[in-house]
Amino acid sequence: MSLNLDELKKLQQKKYRHEFGCFLAEGEHLALELEKAALHKPTLRTSELYVTEEFQHWATTLRKHVITDKQMAQICDTQTPQGIVALVPIAALQLGQATPHSATGEKERAIYLHEIQDPGNLGTILRTLAWFGNFRCLLSPGSVDPFNPKVVRASMGAIFHVPLEVEVPLETLSANFKRIACLDMQGSSLSAKAFKECDCYLFGNEARGVPHEQLQKLGAQPFAIPGSGAIESLNLATVVNMCAYELNRRP
Amino acid sequence: MSLNLDELKKLQQKKYRHEFGCFLAEGEHLALELEKAALHKPTLRTSELYVTEEFQHWATTLRKHVITDKQMAQICDTQTPQGIVALVPIAALQLGQATPHSATGEKERAIYLHEIQDPGNLGTILRTLAWFGNFRCLLSPGSVDPFNPKVVRASMGAIFHVPLEVEVPLETLSANFKRIACLDMQGSSLSAKAFKECDCYLFGNEARGVPHEQLQKLGAQPFAIPGSGAIESLNLATVVNMCAYELNRRP
Repeated sequence: MSLNLDELKKLQQKKYRHEFGCFLAEGEHLALELEKAALHKPTLRTSELYVTEEFQHWATTLRKHVITDKQMAQICDTQTPQGIVALVPIAALQLGQATPHSATGEKERAIYLHEIQDPGNLGTILRTLAWFGNFRCLLSPGSVDPFNPKVVRASMGAIFHVPLEVEVPLETLSANFKRIACLDMQGSSLSAKAFKECDCYLFGNEARGVPHEQLQKLGAQPFAIPGSGAIESLNLATVVNMCAYELNRRP
Repeated sequence: MSLNLDELKKLQQKKYRHEFGCFLAEGEHLALELEKAALHKPTLRTSELYVTEEFQHWATTLRKHVITDKQMAQICDTQTPQGIVALVPIAALQLGQATPHSATGEKERAIYLHEIQDPGNLGTILRTLAWFGNFRCLLSPGSVDPFNPKVVRASMGAIFHVPLEVEVPLETLSANFKRIACLDMQGSSLSAKAFKECDCYLFGNEARGVPHEQLQKLGAQPFAIPGSGAIESLNLATVVNMCAYELNRRP
């Protein structure tokens, strides 16, 4: 899967990440998380490391290429690259969980994010989904690219653990899921038994949500997080995280 | 409370915000949220608006000063100022809630953040605390300044609703609270009855947490969010938000 320097540079752009089928994860922390995830997810073992001289003796089971500091600076997104960057195959992330067990031992649930825009929000959501385990993350067309360096960084390695699918059209959900839940201002409380019984959880764009008409077409069941009424909305990642917490809450 | 232009410019710096006892909230959305909060919190009514000509007829009960576009650009933190900025007295935010009722009708609880650094995290936390109501936010010395423009923006107006106290030393907590909870890797689950019975909830710095020795001195009771073990930690704001959710969860 080795790429030449010109190709590696191009991975800053979404178009080429998807054309080459891989993305970069910068820094030692992410490289360590990648190795850890690869223990349980063999497809991740085709990942490769590009390192500067400083890291040439870094112990790894992955294939390692030594490059110059200048080359590292050219392929990295950060101002001060850490001297180690992993090249990760996207296909490896579409398969099952990197962790063999989940927090609750329950069936896998899908989190569908419709046109999510903020890389920090997506990274935080992935971190929470990996924390609990047993979640799959589906992204609609027009969402931020999960292989964007900002998302990868904010995920703190969670991106290697959560199965991810991109460009999943909203209309296909009803064919693949039996009970779709959505979050709304009005609806049953998250603590209702019906919430746990859904198999797909749908969340809208940060500013616009999901159009009501489309929710109705999908037969999505509305749930709400009751509040004091002081402010109009919660942060999107906050809402997803509270839902993930509720689904993993042990009574 | 009017300040001259030089003084307004200085409010970009924490030192002057605390010296003058006020901070700026930029943009129409925050101005509207401020007006809404002032309905229930009369001390906020001494806030003033600085507006460009475009906004000179903006309907408000607050005192309004018209300034030039150039002056607006000088006092604002954002690249493209929106033409309206509110000057808000800090003292008004240390008092009770701007909202007359809470989600659950329960007693007020304190959220203590120890050396929190990230403005986005603090803004998100305030948004959640305002959403539920009945929370007070205490910040340790060395925390990010809550009147920092980035926090104010990320709070989406929640900063006007949640009573805030800054520079609260960790050591003073045991004198003021009966039962202090902290989040840890080991501990009872958040869903345990004992969690709801605490009156102060303590959260550590994003990277370092709170030193164990200090937690022991305070007699803080540890609680945990059980996970799959795939990743090492959750985002700080995520943890606080899940706790706030649990405290307001209706069984």
